[in-house]
Amino acid sequence: MALAQSLATLSLANSAENDKALQTKTLVFKPKTAKTATPVPVLVLALQSTSTPGAVIAKSANVKEPRLAKDDLVQEFFKTSTKEVSIANLDKGLAGKIKILLDSNVQEAAENDAVLKLSTETASTCLPAKAVLQFLEATGIETIVTDFSAEPAATAAAAAAEKKAAPQKVDGKIDDAKLIGITVDKEKDFSNWYVQVVVKSEMLDYYDVSGCYILRPNSYAVWETIQDYFNVRIKSLGVQNAYFPMFVSQRVLEKEKDHIEGFAPEVAWVTRAGSSELEEHIAIRPTSETVMYPYYAKWIRSHRDLPIKLNQWNSVVRWEFKHPQPFLRTREFLWQEGHTAHLTKEDAAEEVLQILDYYAGVYEELLAVPVIKGKKTENEKFAGGDYTTTVEGFIPATGRGIQGGTSHHLGQNFSKMFNMSVENPEGADKERIYAYQNSWGLSTRVIGVMVMTHSDNRGLVLPPRVAQTQAVVIPVGITAKTTPEQRKQINDGSQEIESRLKKAGVRATGDYRDSYNPGWKFADWELKGVPLRLEFGPKDLESEQVTAVRRNDGKKYTVKLSELETRVAAILEEIQNDLYLKAKKEFDERRVIVDEWKYFIPTLNKKNVILAPWCGDADCEDDIKDSSAKNEDGDDGDVDEKAPSMGAKSLCIPFEQPELKEGQKCVKCDRKAVNYCMFGRSY
Amino acid sequence: MALAQSLATLSLANSAENDKALQTKTLVFKPKTAKTATPVPVLVLALQSTSTPGAVIAKSANVKEPRLAKDDLVQEFFKTSTKEVSIANLDKGLAGKIKILLDSNVQEAAENDAVLKLSTETASTCLPAKAVLQFLEATGIETIVTDFSAEPAATAAAAAAEKKAAPQKVDGKIDDAKLIGITVDKEKDFSNWYVQVVVKSEMLDYYDVSGCYILRPNSYAVWETIQDYFNVRIKSLGVQNAYFPMFVSQRVLEKEKDHIEGFAPEVAWVTRAGSSELEEHIAIRPTSETVMYPYYAKWIRSHRDLPIKLNQWNSVVRWEFKHPQPFLRTREFLWQEGHTAHLTKEDAAEEVLQILDYYAGVYEELLAVPVIKGKKTENEKFAGGDYTTTVEGFIPATGRGIQGGTSHHLGQNFSKMFNMSVENPEGADKERIYAYQNSWGLSTRVIGVMVMTHSDNRGLVLPPRVAQTQAVVIPVGITAKTTPEQRKQINDGSQEIESRLKKAGVRATGDYRDSYNPGWKFADWELKGVPLRLEFGPKDLESEQVTAVRRNDGKKYTVKLSELETRVAAILEEIQNDLYLKAKKEFDERRVIVDEWKYFIPTLNKKNVILAPWCGDADCEDDIKDSSAKNEDGDDGDVDEKAPSMGAKSLCIPFEQPELKEGQKCVKCDRKAVNYCMFGRSY
Repeated sequence: MALAQSLATLSLANSAENDKALQTKTLVFKPKTAKTATPVPVLVLALQSTSTPGAVIAKSANVKEPRLAKDDLVQEFFKTSTKEVSIANLDKGLAGKIKILLDSNVQEAAENDAVLKLSTETASTCLPAKAVLQFLEATGIETIVTDFSAEPAATAAAAAAEKKAAPQKVDGKIDDAKLIGITVDKEKDFSNWYVQVVVKSEMLDYYDVSGCYILRPNSYAVWETIQDYFNVRIKSLGVQNAYFPMFVSQRVLEKEKDHIEGFAPEVAWVTRAGSSELEEHIAIRPTSETVMYPYYAKWIRSHRDLPIKLNQWNSVVRWEFKHPQPFLRTREFLWQEGHTAHLTKEDAAEEVLQILDYYAGVYEELLAVPVIKGKKTENEKFAGGDYTTTVEGFIPATGRGIQGGTSHHLGQNFSKMFNMSVENPEGADKERIYAYQNSWGLSTRVIGVMVMTHSDNRGLVLPPRVAQTQAVVIPVGITAKTTPEQRKQINDGSQEIESRLKKAGVRATGDYRDSYNPGWKFADWELKGVPLRLEFGPKDLESEQVTAVRRNDGKKYTVKLSELETRVAAILEEIQNDLYLKAKKEFDERRVIVDEWKYFIPTLNKKNVILAPWCGDADCEDDIKDSSAKNEDGDDGDVDEKAPSMGAKSLCIPFEQPELKEGQKCVKCDRKAVNYCMFGRSY
Repeated sequence: MALAQSLATLSLANSAENDKALQTKTLVFKPKTAKTATPVPVLVLALQSTSTPGAVIAKSANVKEPRLAKDDLVQEFFKTSTKEVSIANLDKGLAGKIKILLDSNVQEAAENDAVLKLSTETASTCLPAKAVLQFLEATGIETIVTDFSAEPAATAAAAAAEKKAAPQKVDGKIDDAKLIGITVDKEKDFSNWYVQVVVKSEMLDYYDVSGCYILRPNSYAVWETIQDYFNVRIKSLGVQNAYFPMFVSQRVLEKEKDHIEGFAPEVAWVTRAGSSELEEHIAIRPTSETVMYPYYAKWIRSHRDLPIKLNQWNSVVRWEFKHPQPFLRTREFLWQEGHTAHLTKEDAAEEVLQILDYYAGVYEELLAVPVIKGKKTENEKFAGGDYTTTVEGFIPATGRGIQGGTSHHLGQNFSKMFNMSVENPEGADKERIYAYQNSWGLSTRVIGVMVMTHSDNRGLVLPPRVAQTQAVVIPVGITAKTTPEQRKQINDGSQEIESRLKKAGVRATGDYRDSYNPGWKFADWELKGVPLRLEFGPKDLESEQVTAVRRNDGKKYTVKLSELETRVAAILEEIQNDLYLKAKKEFDERRVIVDEWKYFIPTLNKKNVILAPWCGDADCEDDIKDSSAKNEDGDDGDVDEKAPSMGAKSLCIPFEQPELKEGQKCVKCDRKAVNYCMFGRSY
């Protein structure tokens, strides 16, 4: 600690210097260790701009399979969290217990008298690089200077992918291929696998403000496709798009008590503009019921103004303090929110289900993800509404359910609160009618569900209908022996294929980069999830064909150039269909009917969701959740520390019901079952 | 004041009661008065849900042309602003000086023992309606109970429109028609005319949070059309859409000093989430340079990663304290912001102009608004950039210029600040290259410019290409004498026309509402700006034709049903074209070349913008602005109190230049002119 303080005193006050400071990062890795042995963590201090692949760390520190350490390990060694760890947490007591890998660029920085910026989640300081090295030396901890670029990821990847591309060598070596890209196994470390897939495929990047993420073109294009699909359908129902402000005054936000109670702890407040304190604090919408409904009340003058059907594509903010997760739980997220007001309950109820069908369509037709339609229990419905319908998905790798999108019937609760009423069309002497309302929303979470469902250890797998790039053409087989003429023919031929496909409406691209070999390119496009690879080489040139390889399963086809457009379009449709069927088969097999409680937890523990006869009682539902959580103890503690709860929640009461046996009892209690309910661990 | 206090003591503390309180509004109107006479303002106290048309106020208070009073008048009588005025500002001293109109619904509320909610911009209180009436009585001010629904707006409008529709009566009475809709004249009171057009046409509504507005479907559809148009074009340039978070940490936001200096006073800050104070305050983006560029720096590893071209459609927040104006100056607004990074300056510079062409296309091809392309002066360019190009529009009714959209070349300023550099492709020994950057943005302000340009005293005029509804079919000529069979034929025929047009891709609708007569419908659709009205009546039925009437100029056509689809499409294109040509002619005529200073201000005062030879000196530019502002004194003081400045700013240096005469001097100073610059009063 004395050392840490001496370090602090070195901090530079000169802000001009600090502007030029080189941003660094401090990472802690846990190598694979025998269960009984004490792990020796590896702390990496590197420039922010240096990529630090696991393989290089493994080699340089002479350890096996280093992975980013979790909080408990960091706490044990460094007395702080992963987010707060810095070299200030090092002291002499750690000598012999950990290793340090020092980026050679940092050493170079010291030689050039440069300044380093050391940051944690909440603090940062600037120090001369030389002072940092002296400090490290003073700790007495083993420090290994490492040139992370010595084994560039690209080269390793290319070598690996080349091996894979050469048929005679497709054996057990695929592990090497992971160096470029995904370095953890989907089945073994799902959380880290997921983060690697979304980041390395360039779907998303982490952002400076915790819980917020950047949606890069590869994911935003998926969202745009969903927007197009959904807009056409809701517009056919007479829904119109609009935009309401992101701000809502405290007074209005808090008008509906039940509703705000659900959101209050997560609301972000603007209290200042420029240097002026605002007289009234203003919330950023967590959802727009209270933003929109005062105006609905104003606009609805007579029953002729009904129905009102508006939708908006916007972002909302829910400042969750739980662990954020890309796409699934983020503090700002994109969604659409539809809000409609109807004269009759029937009209509203019909729309609720129509919208739910569209949500199912987004999942099944676009994202190739099967979902189950159903109704939420009273416990799980939207606060302030009458009932909630939902589409529920399933992540086979974790065996957990995931809510896909919800369509709520709000009844007259909000319309009474906001005085949204009309004179009874049957006569002014009859009672006024309060509007029957719906609201329904689908967020960018859908993209996370899609990634989790289809992607694999080579990276992202995109269904063709939502892929920004559906097919990539890559010239192959060009060697030192290839004549210039042949080389030209192969390149021209590839470009001709690309151009023909584009004209036919296929979203195709070509990769003609000279600086990378085909193997590297294969791995790169696989990582990014492009559904179909078209290889064009000397043999293809000769036989007037192209070789097509499916991303999802590596299946190869030879396509005659004369049939290029029709065959490629057909293969893309087959991929789309096969992705869906595979996911559906898994969901169907892992949605298990359980009639007796004794089978409930064992079935759950085999990564299934459960269809169980249920009494419909809210307390019984809580009981199921608590009981299934308790039995989890010690069972598989390492599954996923980020799970919100390991108890089985009710996911929905599916519309499509197994037949209840005469006199069937609830799976948990002694009451009579009223229907089958789907239970599962969930996101 | 004693009265106001006694009123305050009556305020209810019981919040349960307050939840049921009826929202009210307090409005002050100034009737038309002889210039020498003291006006007698009319204060209206009504339920929020009661519509208070000017015509009813005029009749009930026995005054002429009441208009919403401006701040100076309200200050004079009530010692407060229009936004803060309430009945608490009434006292006995006002008896005989003002009149009160009391909504009969408020009286009814008192009879039912209801509670009223009285709100101003910053405060609100709840009072028993009875107490309010007693208070009003105690003031001794003349109070007239008024049934605002007694002469419903619709009926008056229908009557007026019917008159207009009947050819024999088209005379001087069109003024009456304004009762439904626009009650002020575009030429005489542009500001209020504009607000009425955007609100009554249902483009936009005012919102509870000052400076924020609701974009209703009628305007959002225009924005969606612009999005489609622009997306196709930028995607052809290789630009991809993405989404970056709306939040930016203080540290990052303030990285580029010149840049932040321009935005700092307007930044909205989130300081609290739920009930937790945030450790670091977080800004809502005023623009995304500092949000995006740190990640560009991270993503750009080699020259092969260039160019990066990203665009996002989002909303940004600039908490301006100037007077807000729908579409033109709003605290949150929708826009697109493109940010690109290039290896060479040439590549970047080419894109700047390409984007500017697209912006001109949005205005000219979609919105039928002519613009002038040019370059901003050093004074007016984007802070932190190298140069700014712009499209500049013109509002004939006020003679003011308006900035339409800007495309900036940022040079290497930001890339140096954010360390966005690559190894020189010509060799590692050569100097590293910092990226050349552009940013460009177009906002929903375009919609305001479109409204100001084309709309008239009957309401909105929409160019067909951006109109959500391009044509409305209205059955006409059905009278008491019409046989049921004929009535059916007319209705069926109208629906057939609608359906044929829809099939042909025309965005058509039909208005078959029984409760309104054709005249009312005509006025209603005119107010909403639908470009083409198709009337189908007995004569049309007989002659197998339909009567088409253009919204923009009332021109009538008879269209044979056999040629329906082609003729309607052609007429819509003609309307689009005519709107553009008319606006272009006006802009061309009102863009006047002035070579000598003595003509500068007189020309400006005739609602022109000016093309003047100019030396290019920044101080001279300031001098022109100051000098033209001073000469404004007393000249036309009532033109528009909301003008940011009445001095003539430089709008742009047009790319298309008049030829400079040999030895031509600057219009203002003694230096040699270097080119023509466009000057004007502006928004």
